[in-house]
Amino acid sequence: MSSNKKEVQLYTAWFCPFAQRAWMALLEKNVDFEYIETDPYNKTPEFLAVNPRGLVPAIVHKGRSIYESTICIEYVDEVWQHEPRLLPTDPYERAVARIWVDFIGKRIIPVFYRILQKETEEEREEGKVELLKNIQSITEAMSEKEPFFFGENFGTVDIVLISYASRLFVLKHYRNFEVPHNETFARFHKWLEAAENRPSFKATMPEPDRILASYEKYANNTAQSELAVAIRKGTAIP
Amino acid sequence: MSSNKKEVQLYTAWFCPFAQRAWMALLEKNVDFEYIETDPYNKTPEFLAVNPRGLVPAIVHKGRSIYESTICIEYVDEVWQHEPRLLPTDPYERAVARIWVDFIGKRIIPVFYRILQKETEEEREEGKVELLKNIQSITEAMSEKEPFFFGENFGTVDIVLISYASRLFVLKHYRNFEVPHNETFARFHKWLEAAENRPSFKATMPEPDRILASYEKYANNTAQSELAVAIRKGTAIP
Repeated sequence: MSSNKKEVQLYTAWFCPFAQRAWMALLEKNVDFEYIETDPYNKTPEFLAVNPRGLVPAIVHKGRSIYESTICIEYVDEVWQHEPRLLPTDPYERAVARIWVDFIGKRIIPVFYRILQKETEEEREEGKVELLKNIQSITEAMSEKEPFFFGENFGTVDIVLISYASRLFVLKHYRNFEVPHNETFARFHKWLEAAENRPSFKATMPEPDRILASYEKYANNTAQSELAVAIRKGTAIP
Repeated sequence: MSSNKKEVQLYTAWFCPFAQRAWMALLEKNVDFEYIETDPYNKTPEFLAVNPRGLVPAIVHKGRSIYESTICIEYVDEVWQHEPRLLPTDPYERAVARIWVDFIGKRIIPVFYRILQKETEEEREEGKVELLKNIQSITEAMSEKEPFFFGENFGTVDIVLISYASRLFVLKHYRNFEVPHNETFARFHKWLEAAENRPSFKATMPEPDRILASYEKYANNTAQSELAVAIRKGTAIP
């Protein structure tokens, strides 16, 4: 390792919402890191040595790799324990945060891709109903205190949710899905506005046109990412 | 709450490997709790009030619910911080533990059910090859120091893995799958023997015949659990 190499490297891809999470976590904690743009569609031996699963994000810290986006967030929060804390300190609230992170992974993200990728109108409409219902569930779980999931503190649930909530315009564009602006979703829209104004979000979010283009293959169902293939085959998402 | 009610309740089902994890965690930490046998196929309003997702395990502690098996393990470890620690204390090792817990959830459990449920011989054989490859990966990730995943300390990776590894005889019975007794898997078999001798495992594992019977509907692909339906439909497992 050369002496001027930074202690932390982030292997990431500009378009990837999972990678955005690890990036946001490092920015939130003000960690000095080297940004390494990585093409997960072209897995080099160097990258596979960092993450044998070949997926972004991966964080290398003191020469050791961490991967899986939500694990990266917890790692960053545990190594750099200063404020802002990305997970609450109370065990019950930590469990609540993890329950909703799990919910987003199982009940929001796969449905997002099904709406894009499914070929029949019926399957897509079924997906839209399910997605809206699940967005309503997480909205109802948000604290009374605004604007973030737990109120004042921006943390892991917000990071994990905004990485997809900020891409809902893709579903509007390709599938005419949107979250209604009504009383049921008022708290969601307040949350969304606040999360989209967070500096760590703004610094990591690409231009809308580039995002739209990056989802075109999903909307045509010709995408070949491991995630797209999993949604198509009906196996667990990677 | 009556004055003689215990501070912790575990909502569980005797046959459920996910529920077994939370049960083992409570036993490992020597927490005093009330065992509440629950039928997840017959979701009562009382149970849905405890876990709106209607799944076991759920832990109620001081009147507040926690659910999702791996989240229960972390919760138990964080509230009762005495030995044995179920997660390592070092952030890097904690991340490694979470990476392998995630791996078991995504790359071992769904394949276990696919081997049971898939109707064609070809799909089942494909599943067997994949399962063996993934068991090899986690075996190679085990520490040189025996017997457990991290060596001497029994913890979350062991609990999560044993809940399914101990049920591999189901695949042997219905599908003639087994992990070879050769050099590649010697460490796995040593791990398995040690984990199956752990008192928290022995106390929570039903008789083999009852387990086999509980998987018959999966092997006939008539099971109606949410997990079975998800595997059949090809959506994310709950």
